[in-house]
Amino acid sequence: MVYRAACCLTGGFVYSKGEIKMANINISFNEKLEKQLQFIVEIDKVKNIFRKSKLFHDDRFENDAEHSWTICIMALLLKEYSNFSVNMEKVISMLLIHDIVEIDAGDTFLYSENRKNAYEEETKSAERIFGLLDKDQKDYFIKIWKEFEERKTNEAKFSAVFDRLEPILQNYILEGYTWKKYNITYEMVIEKNKHIKEASEEIWEFVLKLLEKAVEKGYIKK
Amino acid sequence: MVYRAACCLTGGFVYSKGEIKMANINISFNEKLEKQLQFIVEIDKVKNIFRKSKLFHDDRFENDAEHSWTICIMALLLKEYSNFSVNMEKVISMLLIHDIVEIDAGDTFLYSENRKNAYEEETKSAERIFGLLDKDQKDYFIKIWKEFEERKTNEAKFSAVFDRLEPILQNYILEGYTWKKYNITYEMVIEKNKHIKEASEEIWEFVLKLLEKAVEKGYIKK
Repeated sequence: MVYRAACCLTGGFVYSKGEIKMANINISFNEKLEKQLQFIVEIDKVKNIFRKSKLFHDDRFENDAEHSWTICIMALLLKEYSNFSVNMEKVISMLLIHDIVEIDAGDTFLYSENRKNAYEEETKSAERIFGLLDKDQKDYFIKIWKEFEERKTNEAKFSAVFDRLEPILQNYILEGYTWKKYNITYEMVIEKNKHIKEASEEIWEFVLKLLEKAVEKGYIKK
Repeated sequence: MVYRAACCLTGGFVYSKGEIKMANINISFNEKLEKQLQFIVEIDKVKNIFRKSKLFHDDRFENDAEHSWTICIMALLLKEYSNFSVNMEKVISMLLIHDIVEIDAGDTFLYSENRKNAYEEETKSAERIFGLLDKDQKDYFIKIWKEFEERKTNEAKFSAVFDRLEPILQNYILEGYTWKKYNITYEMVIEKNKHIKEASEEIWEFVLKLLEKAVEKGYIKK
């Protein structure tokens, strides 16, 4: 099951407009800085990659840049709940850039069966997009993106908590909107999110209680 | 001159919808965490506060969350150009939260004559919004927000570079869209942005060259 047709259509449309409009900022003054700024212009495209969850206060889907902003603040605000000490600059860096690969690969729904293929496409995307930078910065960003995806280090585990906590909260507040739409069950949410416990016992306990309440209120089926 | 009528109208509309929809996440399990998450839900409203600049790849205005995401990545990517060493976790924290006060106070255009009144309204807004948190976190966020606004410490000076660099770049790429719309001149841009030099000689030199090119191309008048 692949859920990204809609976002790819939107993406394509926006990109072609973007390419027409996009001026070159190469003013032949400071080559390295200009390359870095072209990268900034390129990654702006995540503002047109839409997720499956809606905003808390508006009836529209959230885009990847907005999602990343929220989970960065969550990580800063909730660092006291980490099971271990983490380097916050690294956590925030991972969260800021983790979805940039979706510019080429599109958003893949957490519960999609297609996540393995998605990873291959995302790897190609990482090569192209971070490849706009000089080798040192390209390598650094690809390294922390892969580290985030592999979820083995403390920073990657802690970052992953917030990538998952935000949509759970959105679903709870919007009365199970995405869960209902895609027939997601309580058991599926537990299975895909249980790694939160490894990084934060307290947040996982809270998620379990929130999911119980969601079942009670009819937002999700057990 | 006040430029925020449009955003306040949008804001009002969205908030009233939000208030109807917004469920309470108080599940009486972990009071402190639930308070922190209510804060996260509240600050989501910045996703409906629109700036005067448009996105690089789409014909719509950028919202405050998207802007904050971009300038955080800029700060990480361009830290090598700082005139002094900075604590990056603090820089990023400032950039992530600096526009939250606009939820109540609205976006005030950099070139508006109303910026002093805006600061008073923003201070009230900071009290209310960060006041949703316990005292330690409230005090911390208000402290770094004020530090950012006062632009005296190295972190505040360096953060300010990116808050200004993004709209300059947007205007250059979109052929002076906001400059033309509000009759902003080259001299006004220099006056309002010259503090960039204090934090980064290299970025300021680049901005000067870019503005010269913008004059040449007819994007802004000298």
